Amino acid sequence: MKVIALADGFEIQAAGRTVLRHSSAHPCLFIGRGEADVQMQRGNFAISDYVSERIPLRSATLSQDDGDVQVRFAVSEGAPTELLMAVREEGHLTFQAASDSINRLWLRVAATKDEHVWGGGEQMSYFDMRGRHFPLWTSEPGVGRDKSTQLTWMADQAGAGGDYFHTNYPQPTFLSSRRYALHVETTAYSAFDFRHADFHEIEVWAVPDAIELFACDTFIDLVGVLSDRFGRQPPLPDWVLNGAIVGLKQGSESFDRLQAFVASGAAISGLWCEDWVGLRITSFGKRLFWDWKWNAERYPGLDQKITELAGQGIRFLGYVNPYLCVDGSLFPVAEQAGYLAKRQDSDATYLVDFGEFDCGVVDFTNPDAAHWFADTIIGGEMLDFGLSGWMADFGEYLPTDVRLANGVDGMLMHNAWPTIWAKVNADAVASRGKTGEALFFMRAGYTGVQRYCPLLWAGDQSVDFTRHDGIGTVVCAALSSGLLGNAYHHSDIGGYTSLFGNVRTAELLMRWSEMAAFTAVMRSHEGNRPDQNLQLDQDPEVLAHFARMTRIYRHLAPYIRFLATEASGAGLPLQRPLFLHHEDDARTYAEQTQYLFGRDLLVAPVLEAGVSSRTVYLPSGADWTHVWSGDSFAGGQDIEISAPFGQPPVFYRPGGDHDSLFQSLRTL
Amino acid sequence: MKVIALADGFEIQAAGRTVLRHSSAHPCLFIGRGEADVQMQRGNFAISDYVSERIPLRSATLSQDDGDVQVRFAVSEGAPTELLMAVREEGHLTFQAASDSINRLWLRVAATKDEHVWGGGEQMSYFDMRGRHFPLWTSEPGVGRDKSTQLTWMADQAGAGGDYFHTNYPQPTFLSSRRYALHVETTAYSAFDFRHADFHEIEVWAVPDAIELFACDTFIDLVGVLSDRFGRQPPLPDWVLNGAIVGLKQGSESFDRLQAFVASGAAISGLWCEDWVGLRITSFGKRLFWDWKWNAERYPGLDQKITELAGQGIRFLGYVNPYLCVDGSLFPVAEQAGYLAKRQDSDATYLVDFGEFDCGVVDFTNPDAAHWFADTIIGGEMLDFGLSGWMADFGEYLPTDVRLANGVDGMLMHNAWPTIWAKVNADAVASRGKTGEALFFMRAGYTGVQRYCPLLWAGDQSVDFTRHDGIGTVVCAALSSGLLGNAYHHSDIGGYTSLFGNVRTAELLMRWSEMAAFTAVMRSHEGNRPDQNLQLDQDPEVLAHFARMTRIYRHLAPYIRFLATEASGAGLPLQRPLFLHHEDDARTYAEQTQYLFGRDLLVAPVLEAGVSSRTVYLPSGADWTHVWSGDSFAGGQDIEISAPFGQPPVFYRPGGDHDSLFQSLRTL
Repeated sequence: MKVIALADGFEIQAAGRTVLRHSSAHPCLFIGRGEADVQMQRGNFAISDYVSERIPLRSATLSQDDGDVQVRFAVSEGAPTELLMAVREEGHLTFQAASDSINRLWLRVAATKDEHVWGGGEQMSYFDMRGRHFPLWTSEPGVGRDKSTQLTWMADQAGAGGDYFHTNYPQPTFLSSRRYALHVETTAYSAFDFRHADFHEIEVWAVPDAIELFACDTFIDLVGVLSDRFGRQPPLPDWVLNGAIVGLKQGSESFDRLQAFVASGAAISGLWCEDWVGLRITSFGKRLFWDWKWNAERYPGLDQKITELAGQGIRFLGYVNPYLCVDGSLFPVAEQAGYLAKRQDSDATYLVDFGEFDCGVVDFTNPDAAHWFADTIIGGEMLDFGLSGWMADFGEYLPTDVRLANGVDGMLMHNAWPTIWAKVNADAVASRGKTGEALFFMRAGYTGVQRYCPLLWAGDQSVDFTRHDGIGTVVCAALSSGLLGNAYHHSDIGGYTSLFGNVRTAELLMRWSEMAAFTAVMRSHEGNRPDQNLQLDQDPEVLAHFARMTRIYRHLAPYIRFLATEASGAGLPLQRPLFLHHEDDARTYAEQTQYLFGRDLLVAPVLEAGVSSRTVYLPSGADWTHVWSGDSFAGGQDIEISAPFGQPPVFYRPGGDHDSLFQSLRTL
Repeated sequence: MKVIALADGFEIQAAGRTVLRHSSAHPCLFIGRGEADVQMQRGNFAISDYVSERIPLRSATLSQDDGDVQVRFAVSEGAPTELLMAVREEGHLTFQAASDSINRLWLRVAATKDEHVWGGGEQMSYFDMRGRHFPLWTSEPGVGRDKSTQLTWMADQAGAGGDYFHTNYPQPTFLSSRRYALHVETTAYSAFDFRHADFHEIEVWAVPDAIELFACDTFIDLVGVLSDRFGRQPPLPDWVLNGAIVGLKQGSESFDRLQAFVASGAAISGLWCEDWVGLRITSFGKRLFWDWKWNAERYPGLDQKITELAGQGIRFLGYVNPYLCVDGSLFPVAEQAGYLAKRQDSDATYLVDFGEFDCGVVDFTNPDAAHWFADTIIGGEMLDFGLSGWMADFGEYLPTDVRLANGVDGMLMHNAWPTIWAKVNADAVASRGKTGEALFFMRAGYTGVQRYCPLLWAGDQSVDFTRHDGIGTVVCAALSSGLLGNAYHHSDIGGYTSLFGNVRTAELLMRWSEMAAFTAVMRSHEGNRPDQNLQLDQDPEVLAHFARMTRIYRHLAPYIRFLATEASGAGLPLQRPLFLHHEDDARTYAEQTQYLFGRDLLVAPVLEAGVSSRTVYLPSGADWTHVWSGDSFAGGQDIEISAPFGQPPVFYRPGGDHDSLFQSLRTL
């Protein structure tokens, strides 16, 4: 970090890259005050801001202090200091405002016209974020997420349609094609505005703790540095590589159905039954009973069944989330102990409406509550019972008007919640000595979730091929989150959300299976309306195709193990944007429909319906061999490749350590 | 106007009402800079603003200057003056900014919790504007105007769905229930924000010429004062009161159809044929040919027909708008003479796409062009030809990136255009000595349109009963615009816009006819898709009902003449909100589904489908007699009244000069 004083202003460089540029005519910093209006409707947020003040700090005075450079910002020369910014050796900018009432800060970061930017957490719509505005607030991603579709419009009638920037896992961190990264250390609402030609604007609804800058010579180094910063993920359990985790939720009938999968020749590592806690029937359909323990009525003899499955080498997985339904057995225990978050206006428990049933919010800022949930619930009722993993659902719904034990405002705790929730799960796993052995997966996230959560899942896609809510969003999600230290990513095979008559096709299930075979974890889901949607085991062709894909996945286990060592060693994600290994091929910078699975496999899943081929860009600097035909292609070109069912466009880069493994893929 | 210096700040009172209150902690004035993004799609605007600065001016120093009080505003005490505000005796605040680069100004006006506000031009959705935000920018009002309806969503796919605040006729003027009014003298984009509890915020995208304050003891006085300010409307031609103006556009067949109306017993004052200029066939349907003169092919012998109609006591009306299509005869004349607005980037004529045909914009800021259009086109081709009136359509489409003869930015001229367009029409009428005799009607408006335009029409409602785009919006439009000096208002009987299969019902035509009989002018329209929609003369029951309503309208002529004297004398509108004559009955302040037609008639049109009665609020301070039954009711109560077809809920206030006229209504 270098601060260069100029005649009027200053410049800050990170490893030679200009990141801040300030002059009185073009100030880099604005402070202000705003009043937010935040409305939550089942995890969907309508947020507006009334900015009453936005004041440019035109005057900047530099001084040296203990090796750090201090910048005193004022409205004009001679006016009182409004904000003190310290530029620290390690690349941090820290801030101190003169007035406590400052609750908005905007920082303009120098940009170049042809710059690309990525990150922002797990983004579902746009991998390259340039040209758009990204509020960063954990929420439901929305159904449809595209105001031009009727599905989105219908969902919007319940406030649930979403938009391109909505995500379960936002994170105020971006990487630039100028080979630097910027992270805002805050849990306040923030937004990245990449719409301007010569600056990016960072908006924070607080004076942030710090803005951290990282610059490296290569993208790979940059990704590694960010992984160091946010924490390496716990390792992926090796048992997962034995095959797919099959999601079924038909009570004890799930076991019989699983055997049909086995009989089809599928490689199975686990059976995942989210309904292990029992059901609740609402007018919306079947919901889970949010009381986190074995429901012996729906799963008689489950303890015994788990043992039997283990004999087959198959694990059993369940489900949990951070709420307790008022009519469950755990709610009164938690309420009595003072473990539930309270209302601001009384001492009553804060109840959240989840659609015909209310729940309490376990207050994880109370260490006793967090310990109870980790040790008694997840530890006792789940791990000790025999679960090898679970969906750790939700994390996005913390109301902003809740009263928490730590006394911090809900506006600051809302974004913090996913990481806190991840830590509760990780603590539970660690308490049983099962880190790297038990697998939980989350959709919600925020800064720091990397350290705790071993596996992201891409949330609740619609059961379709749509641009902003379908199968293709999973690639964008894996690539964006992967750059920020989330090495392991996967999704619901077949998607989840089926609403307004939108149902799964066999084609969708097959294309999704093909894609999932080339990711860290292969897992299926029956969706929100199992009875109205095609299931893998209802169509022999679909089942046979799925079974073959599970064998391909299992076949790749040695390669995935190798990628896992790169994840734990260098902090590299398994699914990588092309530019990570093809830095100088700018054509790859905005590519979000294909990815590298490790350095040596190029995967271009079919993300459209009704096609039997697709265009693939082969990055330059390597030759590429098509795994199904063995045909070889030079890099640096677009090719049209045949992609019948069972042959998703996948290429390997010959000359690596896994050539024979890749060559034998076509024998499966 | 009184300026009261306080220990920290000041207060400004208008006739004892506090309108501005300033202190360093709660400044009343903010200045700033913004960059607007304005996208126009056929008169629908997507406008966003990037406000880079919004600076509170906390320090205010008062001084006396020639009787006016001067307030010097600064960021803080001792800092340089940023803005000078003069408080003038007559109630004007004028502003002078120290820097030319200031292009945003926000003024906070003191508000009370239970205050109501009205005005904003012609508002279609909300008469009482409190609690909402109203951008003021002339545009298409949009189709549907309600994001919860499928019709709006479909229209939104073409950027044409609109929202509650979109209107052809905005005006930055409001009246408060605290019995004062505020007007912003500017043509810049502005917005009224009535969402705050203790202030209204006025936003202007310029330093406005003035903010004018008016305070009176009564609402009637206030309305009169505003009419004085904006100019009295030209008088309504007396021939209009002979009956309805029937809109037909079937070429020369229109004459035969008109005779069927006459034969049905309808009172007819005029035949309005907008297709008198001929047609253009596009993929959208039949459009008019935008070349403003008689089309002898579609209307052979029209000159003779007009004379014949005159013999029947029926006038002929046409259509004009401020564009010239490139393939018409007038375009090359205007282009050659330099009468058309130009592009900014070249000397070429600015062409606006109206859907498969392009048009030039006549540049009325060029006095020669304005004179040519008034004298040669409207005067020569229309008035001299024999037209007694016309729809003076459009006025909202001035592109913001146009280059005009007067050199003023399109962002400032856009809102000015409707009034300029009205003046061209008024000048044409005056040039032939026909003021008060020829009738043109406009949907677009802005400050000052009152002085020129003799009649507003409520624009293009959808052919339905919907809350934000149907029949009911007409009442809201009449009441809001009426408070600002627009005495005469009317609408298309049956509505206009039929899209996506939304078509007229007989019920809608009948309810609309009933309402129109109790307005200044009764006029029908065949709509945008005549062939797909029910017409008045296609159903004997509908036609008979319409005919009776025209006789009711004609019967009321003496009363309407009396109301016209109140309009020209006291500046009172014909359609009045209940509170105008019932000041102290606060229950009337937000009422927008019924109105007073003059002081003595209370009209509560049926605005819902499928009902045969409605609830009517009878304001206090008077008794009310139901015109159809003769039943009498005490004021100050809600009553449920029967409203079969032909008996719209109408009541009179006995004891006035027109009792016998009202009593005989039920004999018609």
